[in-house]
Amino acid sequence: MTDPADMDAFLSEPRDLYRGRALAVIKPSTAAEVARVLALCNTQGVGVVPQGGNTGLVGGQTPDASGRQIVLSLQKLDRIRDVDPASDAMTLEAGVTLARAQEAAEAADRYFPLSLASEGSCTIGGNLATNAGGVHVLAYGAARDLALGLEVALADGRLLSTLGKLRKDNTGYNLTQLFIGSEGTLGVITAATLKLFPRPRSRAVAFLGLDSPDDALALLNFVKERAGPGLQAFEIMSRLGLELVLRHIPGARDPLAAPAPWYALLEIAGFTEGEAERVADLALAEALEAELVADATLAHSLDQAAALWRLRESMSEAQKREGGSIKHDISVPIERIPAFITEAGRRIAARFPQARPVPFGHMGDGNLHYNVSQPAGADKAAFLARWDEMNALVHGLVDAFEGSISAEHGIGRLKRELLAETKNPVALEVMRALKKTLDPNGVLNPGKLL
Amino acid sequence: MTDPADMDAFLSEPRDLYRGRALAVIKPSTAAEVARVLALCNTQGVGVVPQGGNTGLVGGQTPDASGRQIVLSLQKLDRIRDVDPASDAMTLEAGVTLARAQEAAEAADRYFPLSLASEGSCTIGGNLATNAGGVHVLAYGAARDLALGLEVALADGRLLSTLGKLRKDNTGYNLTQLFIGSEGTLGVITAATLKLFPRPRSRAVAFLGLDSPDDALALLNFVKERAGPGLQAFEIMSRLGLELVLRHIPGARDPLAAPAPWYALLEIAGFTEGEAERVADLALAEALEAELVADATLAHSLDQAAALWRLRESMSEAQKREGGSIKHDISVPIERIPAFITEAGRRIAARFPQARPVPFGHMGDGNLHYNVSQPAGADKAAFLARWDEMNALVHGLVDAFEGSISAEHGIGRLKRELLAETKNPVALEVMRALKKTLDPNGVLNPGKLL
Ligand SMILES: Cc1cc2nc3c(=O)[nH]c(=O)nc-3n(C[C@H](O)[C@H](O)[C@H](O)COP(=O)(O)OP(=O)(O)OC[C@H]3O[C@@H](n4cnc5c(N)ncnc54)[C@H](O)[C@@H]3O)c2cc1C
Ligand SMILES: Cc1cc2nc3c(=O)[nH]c(=O)nc-3n(C[C@H](O)[C@H](O)[C@H](O)COP(=O)(O)OP(=O)(O)OC[C@H]3O[C@@H](n4cnc5c(N)ncnc54)[C@H](O)[C@@H]3O)c2cc1C
Repeated sequence: MTDPADMDAFLSEPRDLYRGRALAVIKPSTAAEVARVLALCNTQGVGVVPQGGNTGLVGGQTPDASGRQIVLSLQKLDRIRDVDPASDAMTLEAGVTLARAQEAAEAADRYFPLSLASEGSCTIGGNLATNAGGVHVLAYGAARDLALGLEVALADGRLLSTLGKLRKDNTGYNLTQLFIGSEGTLGVITAATLKLFPRPRSRAVAFLGLDSPDDALALLNFVKERAGPGLQAFEIMSRLGLELVLRHIPGARDPLAAPAPWYALLEIAGFTEGEAERVADLALAEALEAELVADATLAHSLDQAAALWRLRESMSEAQKREGGSIKHDISVPIERIPAFITEAGRRIAARFPQARPVPFGHMGDGNLHYNVSQPAGADKAAFLARWDEMNALVHGLVDAFEGSISAEHGIGRLKRELLAETKNPVALEVMRALKKTLDPNGVLNPGKLL
Repeated sequence: MTDPADMDAFLSEPRDLYRGRALAVIKPSTAAEVARVLALCNTQGVGVVPQGGNTGLVGGQTPDASGRQIVLSLQKLDRIRDVDPASDAMTLEAGVTLARAQEAAEAADRYFPLSLASEGSCTIGGNLATNAGGVHVLAYGAARDLALGLEVALADGRLLSTLGKLRKDNTGYNLTQLFIGSEGTLGVITAATLKLFPRPRSRAVAFLGLDSPDDALALLNFVKERAGPGLQAFEIMSRLGLELVLRHIPGARDPLAAPAPWYALLEIAGFTEGEAERVADLALAEALEAELVADATLAHSLDQAAALWRLRESMSEAQKREGGSIKHDISVPIERIPAFITEAGRRIAARFPQARPVPFGHMGDGNLHYNVSQPAGADKAAFLARWDEMNALVHGLVDAFEGSISAEHGIGRLKRELLAETKNPVALEVMRALKKTLDPNGVLNPGKLL
């Protein structure tokens, strides 16, 4: 496609934070076609921007403003090549959406645990290129941990395959993991073999009122010890977070009788009838007795469970409706989450009086979406104008806590400079050397990540 | 060390299949010293052979015969830098033995699941360099899946660190995974941050008589669906395998009343009191009812559990005592294990009449130690003289089954030529390009792997 009207949807992303131009949008239908496009662009020195579902949050899938790059959409590579429940593996092309991948697993009575709010649109290729996380990382790992092999078109048009259903294969360097998380800068993923898991037969979802992040940490360990790998998710939010959801999201209601300063949402899975409920009941009863938990509710139906999850999943939307919000996708060692929340709150209060931190997210993974809402009633633009200053404050603290400035969303364009400033210099050198080895002409997603 | 007597233990390995010479054996005590040794060797063009516990099975840790390489022993890097149970992470130096790592986890009331028969001697550095597997891969993955970060001395003496306790960090290429499984050919691991897990509170071990590998496959799926991630191990062996153990291993006794053609050993873990037994009882009762299992025994004490495990773990020793045995460490997609066993047996019977296949191992991972014992009473040397022919037969079949010629032990010297013949050519090219990028002078473990 070269018509500007046709190309438009591929040149910007849903939030419209990034917008670019392109020579063309190319939609190949097979891995061989992808490889041929790359070979051509490589010899012509044309930059190629791979794109899956266009849901990425760091601008990685958007071409630059030069109009000299092409967008390579993987949408037409959407075949499910093979689902093999007895080997617990399925092979899908890169353009298959995450929701379809989940359905394919379910149709074979298996479970594919990757789960993101964008799952209706995002693609397996994009999930792997960004090493997407989501709510079940605690039990199953991120996209990286769910791949057995890849098919990748290299910059010069060679097609590399590590596809296969093997759970163990120690025949040389792990090329699969090198491409996962490389955001389209080392190769274009055309297909992947993914792991399948047994389907949980029971699930318990609980929402708990807590006095502090310290209690959340203690509770996390407490439940981990009792549920083991059955603990599938452990999310936290503050009272302010819940209040924003109650204020802005139609139908949301407070599941607990009295307000608590902090909340945890946890999900436990079981593989026999009633097992999840039994483990959850036991763990919660003991946690209440140990006074780790102020109040708790356990969902007694799928509807109730969904309503509890909706409170957590509406956080971003609620913050948006509350006004300006400055965002950070960070991680620190799990044990340091409480100290991080305290210290970040203290520093923000000093520099941004009245700004309202609304940290929430995947505590079980040490990953917070450390978002800060504007002062109530204040000027949105004036607050957002201090985005960089706020970022510097939060990321500086992340560094002091030996954390990561991008826990799950990647680097893309958004954090490219930040990466260069904060990453271990030797690691950066090695990354640049690998990029040069695999993409000597620099045609793969130029200006992203590195 | 340069004295031949002092060096001797470092120049051969326990089975004495490989033996080399060396300019010196160097035992640095810190990562900085390792880096300095490498910088020097790099400029002088001296090959460096990293060595941990010297238990590797493919000759990777032994210098060549030239006498111009050095052995770099990591044994003195044996500090436990940090154990952080609340973050579920510990940081250890490369020379810490696996057994000490397990103990360090246990002392913090946590579990480190990597478990090998060589755990008293092998080191964390060696485990990661070979991506070691073992009996708990089914539930926890191989060494690769247990590392959060590494410290690595590069060929030119730069020290790269990806150490850290983060469960999520999407800031660029995953360098950690590139070094894991690279067998000392891309860098020398000096330390690692490893994942910790909750300690199982209950364990059930069962030994089951089965009619066929097909029933073993059906049983595996059956138990997986009922135990989920609680299923920690699923091993198989044939009647002949058990008979060899009963014949040669003092104290071994048949745990079942009547012989069965095949056996499975399975282990289920639970995180609350009695949970493992409850799940195991239920799964076994249903499996007996579904006639998947001919007979079964469940261990009712730790001693009984250990005795059942000993049957499985004595397989190699029993085969050795029975005479010559030609070995293969292979994997295929789990679903194809039964067909592989049948077809391999058929082909071997045709070409090696009276030779006795004794396949056993990690069926849950699709990984068999497909070993073939010599014909009873025949000449051992004559049988072993056909090692290459047998290998070619078995590895050819592995290829036809889309399997791996090295599931867990790696390539080293033993399978270097085989790798070059069997690996996807593009994958080989990329591996060679990476080697050249990270070790341009070819000083890291020359002649190994590639
Ligand atoms: C509402 C919403 C919720 C989200 N929730 C989460 C969450 O919980 N956790 C999380 O980690 N992320 C989340 N994300 C971001 C997440 O990264 C993406 O949703 C998803 O992983 C990207 O997939 P995609 O197909 O849309 O990729 P795109 O957006 O099209 O591309 C993303 C990046 O990958 C590259 N790429 C895409 N396809 C390929 C390919 N086949 N080969 C090589 N490179 C490729 C692109 O060049 C780009 O750099 C969310 C996004 C939204 C909009
Ligand atoms: C009785 C027995 C049972 C075994 N069981 C299993 C099993 O169940 N599963 C399995 O996977 N393996 C098994 N193995 C083999 C296994 O690979 C090793 O036991 C172990 O992982 C190697 O560790 P090591 O410290 O002894 O390494 P070494 O033998 O010293 O070295 C192995 C390789 O790693 C390299 N290396 C060592 N240390 C470093 C370092 N710090 N940095 C870079 N490179 C390094 C060496 O150069 C060599 O290539 C077994 C071995 C034995 C003897």
